[in-house]
Amino acid sequence: MTTTLTLRPPYLIFLGDETRKTYGKTGQGIADWRPERCAGQLRLTPDTLRIGLPDLSVEEAMAAGAGSLIVGTALVGGSLPAAWIDTLCRAARGGMDIVAGLHSRLDSIPALVAAASEGGARLIDVRTPPADLPVGSGRKRRGRRLLTVGTDCALGKKYTALQLERDMLAQGLNASFRASGQTGIMIAGSGVPIDCVVADFISGAAEVLSPDNTDDHWDIIEGQGAIFHPGYAAVTHGLLIGSQPDAFVVCHEAHRDVVSGWPHIPLPTIGEVIERTVAIGRLTNPAIRCVGISVNTSHLPGAERADYLQSLSDRYGLPCVDPMAGGTQALLTGWERLTLA
Amino acid sequence: MTTTLTLRPPYLIFLGDETRKTYGKTGQGIADWRPERCAGQLRLTPDTLRIGLPDLSVEEAMAAGAGSLIVGTALVGGSLPAAWIDTLCRAARGGMDIVAGLHSRLDSIPALVAAASEGGARLIDVRTPPADLPVGSGRKRRGRRLLTVGTDCALGKKYTALQLERDMLAQGLNASFRASGQTGIMIAGSGVPIDCVVADFISGAAEVLSPDNTDDHWDIIEGQGAIFHPGYAAVTHGLLIGSQPDAFVVCHEAHRDVVSGWPHIPLPTIGEVIERTVAIGRLTNPAIRCVGISVNTSHLPGAERADYLQSLSDRYGLPCVDPMAGGTQALLTGWERLTLA
Repeated sequence: MTTTLTLRPPYLIFLGDETRKTYGKTGQGIADWRPERCAGQLRLTPDTLRIGLPDLSVEEAMAAGAGSLIVGTALVGGSLPAAWIDTLCRAARGGMDIVAGLHSRLDSIPALVAAASEGGARLIDVRTPPADLPVGSGRKRRGRRLLTVGTDCALGKKYTALQLERDMLAQGLNASFRASGQTGIMIAGSGVPIDCVVADFISGAAEVLSPDNTDDHWDIIEGQGAIFHPGYAAVTHGLLIGSQPDAFVVCHEAHRDVVSGWPHIPLPTIGEVIERTVAIGRLTNPAIRCVGISVNTSHLPGAERADYLQSLSDRYGLPCVDPMAGGTQALLTGWERLTLA
Repeated sequence: MTTTLTLRPPYLIFLGDETRKTYGKTGQGIADWRPERCAGQLRLTPDTLRIGLPDLSVEEAMAAGAGSLIVGTALVGGSLPAAWIDTLCRAARGGMDIVAGLHSRLDSIPALVAAASEGGARLIDVRTPPADLPVGSGRKRRGRRLLTVGTDCALGKKYTALQLERDMLAQGLNASFRASGQTGIMIAGSGVPIDCVVADFISGAAEVLSPDNTDDHWDIIEGQGAIFHPGYAAVTHGLLIGSQPDAFVVCHEAHRDVVSGWPHIPLPTIGEVIERTVAIGRLTNPAIRCVGISVNTSHLPGAERADYLQSLSDRYGLPCVDPMAGGTQALLTGWERLTLA
């Protein structure tokens, strides 16, 4: 059976000598959303950023039973600094899996390959999909599914899904976040990097990501791309068909009006995204429906945020939240009815 | 600049010891559509199927200046019989590129790698996309484009495109077939295997496949998958967006009513395919329109075919042809008007 990528906790989050918070978002995300899977953070210099975990050396992490060292920073150049490789080699030699989502592959570093072999550790590149993914079958699976979709990329699909999972679990519902991107995989500890899959297998990969489950269980699936995106819409299309969601939430950023990085392409309206998502999603789930809107309002003055959310809610007749400022509970009202529908 | 895969003519079409016509369709397609690019056929036994080209040995083909040996047969097991490898090695050692689209990669055969290195030949796996494909830009390109789309897979999108190119050239129009699949690439001598591209680059690959051209030039782009297909729709979506077609032709097989290989999924109607293709295609070309229907009627009794085509033409108000029995000229009526529109 094909499985998703699966990471071995607890984690040592490696931050190198990175001092800029914005380049440590991956490590911060893991610490914020899955603190129970983290043993500690490893910082090479006193100035290196902190993500709120105990400082541990490689040796201390090994003594604490750490299963993986995760590179929690982004790299501009894409390849690992020589000073970092030495630390990674020590961890691999000690038996810790090395996990990264960099442009250069871990197994292209001979010293690291040798160290991993010596320590019996795995080198896990979260951009490399599992082998033997199937072609999508379109077969209806048991259990319920919610997918986050967006008016664009990079505006909160992952965090909306994570907050939904957190709020559903707090309500006593049975839910699992399902990661479709590299940071999500590091946070969840498993998943499929859907945008790295070979084209023929996109919807099949999405099917593997949310397998059969119990009738009361919700998969909360991290969306990718955007259905009107000139570069990434194909990924979004395949993820939608393979996820066969019962419900979806549209994610948006307040006042973004062109596709980020594609300034000649105007953003679709939330209404257009709802209509297109329903039209395509009906192929594998005729009952698909939009259950709410999730907006990143961080660029708005604080005093305008509530009115903005209310105006969208009124326009579309759907609950509308900013998940990072108030959670997603308002999207979950009447959820039992949806589950029973 | 990223380029498409490009093959070196003239070709020696290798048929091994295959006796079954249906397993030699790739070789036959090259001989039928591009005889001017073929030097000859290579058959290992007297019973091996023929595709209408002169019989040549490896040595005779080399003397004739052959640039590539193309494996023109399908393999059920997927890997090359040992008896064939010897012939391929002789050709590679003599400097001929070896071209195949098998499941096992040519560069996984050490003897062949050594022979190619010795002869300065390339091993070209037409399932391997060019490196460094871009993400789709959505930028409008010069020149005109027609895409063949389908109610399903494997019902004539490639042959419709090839026949359109042939008929357009015969009318004095400026047209080029653009191959998006492995057999198409072998026929055209270049192209991009769009279903083998990594998900994020599907529409970018389609953009590379039909670059800027003169205003009077038509790219006739081979479609892939089908927009309502549970497995392959994502590929179709990305190819459509990246191709930004001005025109499309819907391909269908008479009386096919479920998705081939997915018997639980009913086929969409031609009308549904037109509507969805226009809806999605508008993202990158607001002027997109359906210019006709192409139907494989070979499963119908001969006497019923004309009535069947006429009934579809009446229902949709579009010209309707069987390209393999009568060509595509009826689709090209008023084409100058379309070009000038």
